[in-house]
Amino acid sequence: MKPPIGPATRLCMSLAARPGTFGSRFHNHLYAALGLDYVYKAFTTTDLPGAITGIRALGIRGCAVSMPFKEDVIPLLDGLEASAAAIDSVNTIVNDDGTLLGHNTDYSAVRTLVEALDADRTAPFLLRGSGGMAKAVATALVDAGFTNGTIAARNRAKGAALADRLGLTHVADPAGLEAAMLVNVTPLGMTGADADALAFTPDQIAAASVVVDVVAKPVETPLLRAARDAGRTVVTGAAIAKLQALEQFVLYTGVTPGDEQVAAAEAFALAG
Amino acid sequence: MKPPIGPATRLCMSLAARPGTFGSRFHNHLYAALGLDYVYKAFTTTDLPGAITGIRALGIRGCAVSMPFKEDVIPLLDGLEASAAAIDSVNTIVNDDGTLLGHNTDYSAVRTLVEALDADRTAPFLLRGSGGMAKAVATALVDAGFTNGTIAARNRAKGAALADRLGLTHVADPAGLEAAMLVNVTPLGMTGADADALAFTPDQIAAASVVVDVVAKPVETPLLRAARDAGRTVVTGAAIAKLQALEQFVLYTGVTPGDEQVAAAEAFALAG
Repeated sequence: MKPPIGPATRLCMSLAARPGTFGSRFHNHLYAALGLDYVYKAFTTTDLPGAITGIRALGIRGCAVSMPFKEDVIPLLDGLEASAAAIDSVNTIVNDDGTLLGHNTDYSAVRTLVEALDADRTAPFLLRGSGGMAKAVATALVDAGFTNGTIAARNRAKGAALADRLGLTHVADPAGLEAAMLVNVTPLGMTGADADALAFTPDQIAAASVVVDVVAKPVETPLLRAARDAGRTVVTGAAIAKLQALEQFVLYTGVTPGDEQVAAAEAFALAG
Repeated sequence: MKPPIGPATRLCMSLAARPGTFGSRFHNHLYAALGLDYVYKAFTTTDLPGAITGIRALGIRGCAVSMPFKEDVIPLLDGLEASAAAIDSVNTIVNDDGTLLGHNTDYSAVRTLVEALDADRTAPFLLRGSGGMAKAVATALVDAGFTNGTIAARNRAKGAALADRLGLTHVADPAGLEAAMLVNVTPLGMTGADADALAFTPDQIAAASVVVDVVAKPVETPLLRAARDAGRTVVTGAAIAKLQALEQFVLYTGVTPGDEQVAAAEAFALAG
């Protein structure tokens, strides 16, 4: 039984230009299920330094950081943990008695999931995307041992920069390319305008053995459905979202919930 | 039915050196009862300017201000409403789209309660205390028309300053004085070391027609019990605490709850 909110209750929060409902629902559901004296609240801001000052002054325990703050927040913190330093991007702040350290649970969640794959590290991967999440995913792949990759990105400058940083190849257009692992880090297949888009062709899916899609809504994108239908191993955006949120939860509370509790919190969060 | 906490949920808060449970329990109980998408959290801080910066940057809707911040917060705000300007003390901040105005609902609640008394304004009152709350209560009494008063305070400098400010008399010791209205603004009778102390003597109570006690815990102090037993009109600390919290609630939400809802929230808050 969660106690009523009071002076001892710890606040965790998020900062995003357009805050979503997933974090609030996921964390608050787990606080209630585990009887933890925490509350989670999503915020936006037009004053990032002021928001970080507030986190320090009010003793806010943790903060998820989303677009467009993941890089601008770095000089406002006291340091970066390895996950954030690996990609110079912060999606999680942990406040230990006034010392604010940046983490990146997108990176660490993807790394954990791809390290668990029974897959040939030397086989090529093809990754679509060049934004902040593409940097997290590509770096996690390389750090997990998948070093033979191609970044496909229409934004030539960003795609080439990401590929150069990691010793990968860059192409503007993935058409006609085949790889053992296909990785979508674009919005293709996401609920909305791109909902029907397939990030890779059926031929590419047929030639691959593993398909990774970071799109979390819907839980089953056209790409994941096609990959499952073709019998391919998949890493889903929902799994990444769940694991990165769980890692935040553990960082903030020190408590690791059970699998069923996490599944229930995820289901509640996705219903929001 | 209160919606789950999400991006649209508005945060209200408090700042105090030693935060209590009353505000969190009172406000959160009413939010739930009225289905309002708000959450209330008590904070402390060692960085008042940083906390106010955070209120602005995070768009926190309102903030109760307690000891020792009620005067130091004034230069950090954009202005004072009449209730706070009357005593140069803020116990409530309302954030309207980034404009922070200071209010004082202790002052306004006491003023409302004493204005409702069927009592002779020209009859003398005797007030014990000289702290911030004593200033609020004494000023509310004078502004309500009770201009014939004596401030009894062992702290001669503060007591004399308060009396001078309001055109009242100051004495160090209330012993032997009689007045139509007795007003206790000391901790005498409060749960703890002073629980058994009677702020005024039975003779003083017998000579009075109205007794005001700002002590809210316990709900019935020795002074209030003695006054009630003697058939005197009483204004209780619990009534003041409830009304000032209700005024904060209305300022933050724009919603005026019903009497039964307020009574239920007060009962829940006092049980904390």
